[in-house]
Amino acid sequence: MKHWTVYLSGEIHTDWRELIIQGCEDLGLDISFTSPVTDHDSSDAAGDFLGHENIQFWRDHKSSKVNAIRTQALLKASDIAIIRFGDKYKQWNAAFDAGYCAALGKTYITLHNENIIHPLKEVDAAAMAWAQTPEDVVTLLHYVIAS
Amino acid sequence: MKHWTVYLSGEIHTDWRELIIQGCEDLGLDISFTSPVTDHDSSDAAGDFLGHENIQFWRDHKSSKVNAIRTQALLKASDIAIIRFGDKYKQWNAAFDAGYCAALGKTYITLHNENIIHPLKEVDAAAMAWAQTPEDVVTLLHYVIAS
Amino acid sequence: MKHWTVYLSGEIHTDWRELIIQGCEDLGLDISFTSPVTDHDSSDAAGDFLGHENIQFWRDHKSSKVNAIRTQALLKASDIAIIRFGDKYKQWNAAFDAGYCAALGKTYITLHNENIIHPLKEVDAAAMAWAQTPEDVVTLLHYVIAS
Amino acid sequence: MKHWTVYLSGEIHTDWRELIIQGCEDLGLDISFTSPVTDHDSSDAAGDFLGHENIQFWRDHKSSKVNAIRTQALLKASDIAIIRFGDKYKQWNAAFDAGYCAALGKTYITLHNENIIHPLKEVDAAAMAWAQTPEDVVTLLHYVIAS
Amino acid sequence: MKHWTVYLSGEIHTDWRELIIQGCEDLGLDISFTSPVTDHDSSDAAGDFLGHENIQFWRDHKSSKVNAIRTQALLKASDIAIIRFGDKYKQWNAAFDAGYCAALGKTYITLHNENIIHPLKEVDAAAMAWAQTPEDVVTLLHYVIAS
Amino acid sequence: MKHWTVYLSGEIHTDWRELIIQGCEDLGLDISFTSPVTDHDSSDAAGDFLGHENIQFWRDHKSSKVNAIRTQALLKASDIAIIRFGDKYKQWNAAFDAGYCAALGKTYITLHNENIIHPLKEVDAAAMAWAQTPEDVVTLLHYVIAS
Amino acid sequence: MKHWTVYLSGEIHTDWRELIIQGCEDLGLDISFTSPVTDHDSSDAAGDFLGHENIQFWRDHKSSKVNAIRTQALLKASDIAIIRFGDKYKQWNAAFDAGYCAALGKTYITLHNENIIHPLKEVDAAAMAWAQTPEDVVTLLHYVIAS
Amino acid sequence: MKHWTVYLSGEIHTDWRELIIQGCEDLGLDISFTSPVTDHDSSDAAGDFLGHENIQFWRDHKSSKVNAIRTQALLKASDIAIIRFGDKYKQWNAAFDAGYCAALGKTYITLHNENIIHPLKEVDAAAMAWAQTPEDVVTLLHYVIAS
Repeated sequence: MKHWTVYLSGEIHTDWRELIIQGCEDLGLDISFTSPVTDHDSSDAAGDFLGHENIQFWRDHKSSKVNAIRTQALLKASDIAIIRFGDKYKQWNAAFDAGYCAALGKTYITLHNENIIHPLKEVDAAAMAWAQTPEDVVTLLHYVIAS
Repeated sequence: MKHWTVYLSGEIHTDWRELIIQGCEDLGLDISFTSPVTDHDSSDAAGDFLGHENIQFWRDHKSSKVNAIRTQALLKASDIAIIRFGDKYKQWNAAFDAGYCAALGKTYITLHNENIIHPLKEVDAAAMAWAQTPEDVVTLLHYVIAS
Repeated sequence: MKHWTVYLSGEIHTDWRELIIQGCEDLGLDISFTSPVTDHDSSDAAGDFLGHENIQFWRDHKSSKVNAIRTQALLKASDIAIIRFGDKYKQWNAAFDAGYCAALGKTYITLHNENIIHPLKEVDAAAMAWAQTPEDVVTLLHYVIAS
Repeated sequence: MKHWTVYLSGEIHTDWRELIIQGCEDLGLDISFTSPVTDHDSSDAAGDFLGHENIQFWRDHKSSKVNAIRTQALLKASDIAIIRFGDKYKQWNAAFDAGYCAALGKTYITLHNENIIHPLKEVDAAAMAWAQTPEDVVTLLHYVIAS
Repeated sequence: MKHWTVYLSGEIHTDWRELIIQGCEDLGLDISFTSPVTDHDSSDAAGDFLGHENIQFWRDHKSSKVNAIRTQALLKASDIAIIRFGDKYKQWNAAFDAGYCAALGKTYITLHNENIIHPLKEVDAAAMAWAQTPEDVVTLLHYVIAS
Repeated sequence: MKHWTVYLSGEIHTDWRELIIQGCEDLGLDISFTSPVTDHDSSDAAGDFLGHENIQFWRDHKSSKVNAIRTQALLKASDIAIIRFGDKYKQWNAAFDAGYCAALGKTYITLHNENIIHPLKEVDAAAMAWAQTPEDVVTLLHYVIAS
Repeated sequence: MKHWTVYLSGEIHTDWRELIIQGCEDLGLDISFTSPVTDHDSSDAAGDFLGHENIQFWRDHKSSKVNAIRTQALLKASDIAIIRFGDKYKQWNAAFDAGYCAALGKTYITLHNENIIHPLKEVDAAAMAWAQTPEDVVTLLHYVIAS
Repeated sequence: MKHWTVYLSGEIHTDWRELIIQGCEDLGLDISFTSPVTDHDSSDAAGDFLGHENIQFWRDHKSSKVNAIRTQALLKASDIAIIRFGDKYKQWNAAFDAGYCAALGKTYITLHNENIIHPLKEVDAAAMAWAQTPEDVVTLLHYVIAS
């Protein structure tokens, strides 16, 4: 039996990750879940220990690169990515991850509400499925992995 | 002398593409510029001729895939991509293109105002430069290509 | 000793998979076998839980993409693919898998009767072997893995 | 302006290739079209000059490999493939080409009637568009290339 | 019409290259032919100008690497390779080129007499065709390119 | 500590493999060794069970392809290849494996006597080391793996 | 939980490797560390056992290739590389490793003092972070791996 | 006849580039030469027009990335790279380019004096040739391209 690794990209302000992880655990699915650092403040400060930056652009730049060490390694090592778009914020990093997966030929699934179908059309077009709830994602993973 | 191809991705509601193209032409730079279809209504209707869809998701899906035939071919064939984020709209397709470039090892330059530095930090971190005006992009292309 | 993974692609209406798996088990070969979902109705309905589709094309489209999450991951993770063509049905998905393997440089073996040699000539030409019975496949795997 | 190359794969018993080529020429599109050898008897005899084979399997094998020298080179050199499934014959080579394109990340468009949607669902799921007539393909190429 | 490039690897002591080039020219085929340096003494002395070596191993090493600058570039840039094994000498460099092509997914054709079928079986197994005379190669190229 | 896999390619008529394996075992090196099928008769007959062939070329062809299922998988899965050329036979398959490794960027070491330096110059030029005895290979692996 | 592998490239005359390894061990991080051979004399003599060389260039050449068997395998197998530049020596091999990582898309972190920022600007520009002390590297690995 | 492109990397304070270009021109070789920006001050200031930086690290960072747009594109597009190490400065960017070429499988030639053989041993080990004068490079290119 193959062991699966699923990367959970995107929104960090709701509990969608916990719902998917718990749902898969309840079904006994053999999956390791990975994620970016999901604590907003820690993520923004990821590079601060390497020296204080006065200019916002460089502080963000340094932290984003430190975070990328983690996210690139985990994304590349995953079998499937779930990419979540919430109702708030720009979430360009989630769309960036989707494009990254598409270019690598890695399959991903989007998770978002119906009201943002149109702006996400390019991202959805390259996805293997669009789910609207964490429960749908659990059902999908169950089918894909355990059928 | 190498002939260069530059892909212009992102915002379609302002004249940034024309400014860059004209600026490079004025300098006599040997560049071919390529773009997605930039007429909003045509782009949304790209798949309509293959049969009418009642459901918005599938209409968008079909059109996005037809557009992707063009954008993937042109993006892969380019030496450099310029990725423009305007002040309005979600523009997830632009961030998707950035991630696509990053995974392919293709260099790209972002073009956006200072007020969206923070939400674009992951996209900027993987870029080779951040420009704030089309004039800056022209100066950059001039330096890169003609020095 | 290398552990081998063998993907069993194609026909789902006869017991060829069971015969190969049992034959290899009887010989004590260290092989993990993987397959697409082989229950016809489940496979056709793979995307139904993501929302009902009235139009056949989109129902098939959605289910096929969900199934592809599984099949692409398992096919890429395999050392060898066995691709079975039965006497009935179009089985274009099996030929699709063969082309997919060929482009990836993954070795595959075809399993089919003599009466379809001619229409399968391109598929056989890119294969590493043509077997006519599950017993032949077991013998081949035994030789390849355990010599 | 990019020059485009389009590979026309599949059915060889109807005039769909001529219709697409003529339609694009009428529109003045800058496209080179390539194809496998479309004369059935020549294609079957492609390897005969290298020595007569008594056994059908090896005659087919030899000819298919000779044909593959051409088809692989042309398929890899194309920007887009059109893959045509007619109403007759197994046409496993067309499905093989589709899988080959999918694994290479090359975009392809299927061309077939509505009555074979279900058996082609995996092939269509990995395609960028499904067209029902050569005219649709011409319209699509016009949009993709000349917008 | 695609322009083709054919690399002629192997034996340097007979006129097989000239026969193929002349034969294709007579047929008006649009092919560029490339080759390693075929003058034996020049090839062995390829690195001498970089400093004299007393030890045979290093003289050969230096010359082989200089020759590899040429052969790798030309081999990678070719559409098809013809790999010729004569009746004399070890010709391990020809078999090396065949393995190199096989790993790159580049199609190649072997050209050799019947008496060395058995020792060449692995090299022939990965080839797309086995030809016995330069005339056969010309016929094959004619079919592949001009049909 | 990394576990290493070393593929032993080439000559099958002397005990060089056993000497290397035993030498590494005596030093307690953490290496898995893999090889092609080294029984000459079994290897020549590898495809016979798939149907008798009257023509030598096709018998060799079929057996070589069956053997390639094993050798390609093991070669790709190895960290290092040792490629042995003995004093007898053509051994084109060993040179083929060397070219295969070179194109994949896989490091290999040649093992041969001084008297065949000149005909092996291209093969040695792409190798990481030339060893003259199995004992040298053991010393080399000890240094590389356990320093 | 992913197990991480970190390659420690560069300077061999100070104890920076030990400090990083000890620091990560103290934090209980699940990391395997790998390195080139760090004993200067052993490294310079890596090829001596394959035969004495009188000419410095070939002695260095032979030893460097033997060392490359180890360093290429370990570098490719790592998730992250730390590349250390000390205050003395040319250390071109460290910059070579950085370029090697950059081309492979492998993330690396530089470790060096402030006084060599300018000559290292190209190497730092392709890095994901610049650290000034081994303690910073430990903090970074802690954040990346264990957040 | 293949047209060749040669990238000239490294030292910018002597006239080695001009000597090679002139020498090849005198021989009528069909080569395009490309280079990084070789004006030291311009290169250091490459990113200044995108906004002034007070901190040296970020000024260097920004300029290096702008320069990398050019160097990566030209290096990837070249057939051969010549990598020059002079007697002064750290020249880590030249060693970085060498590593970059090595990982891409692009052949390169080093050009340096005898006194720095030892510190360049890893860089030379992955090169296809070591030349000591621009005249040697011209002779080498003449042999490789025009034999």
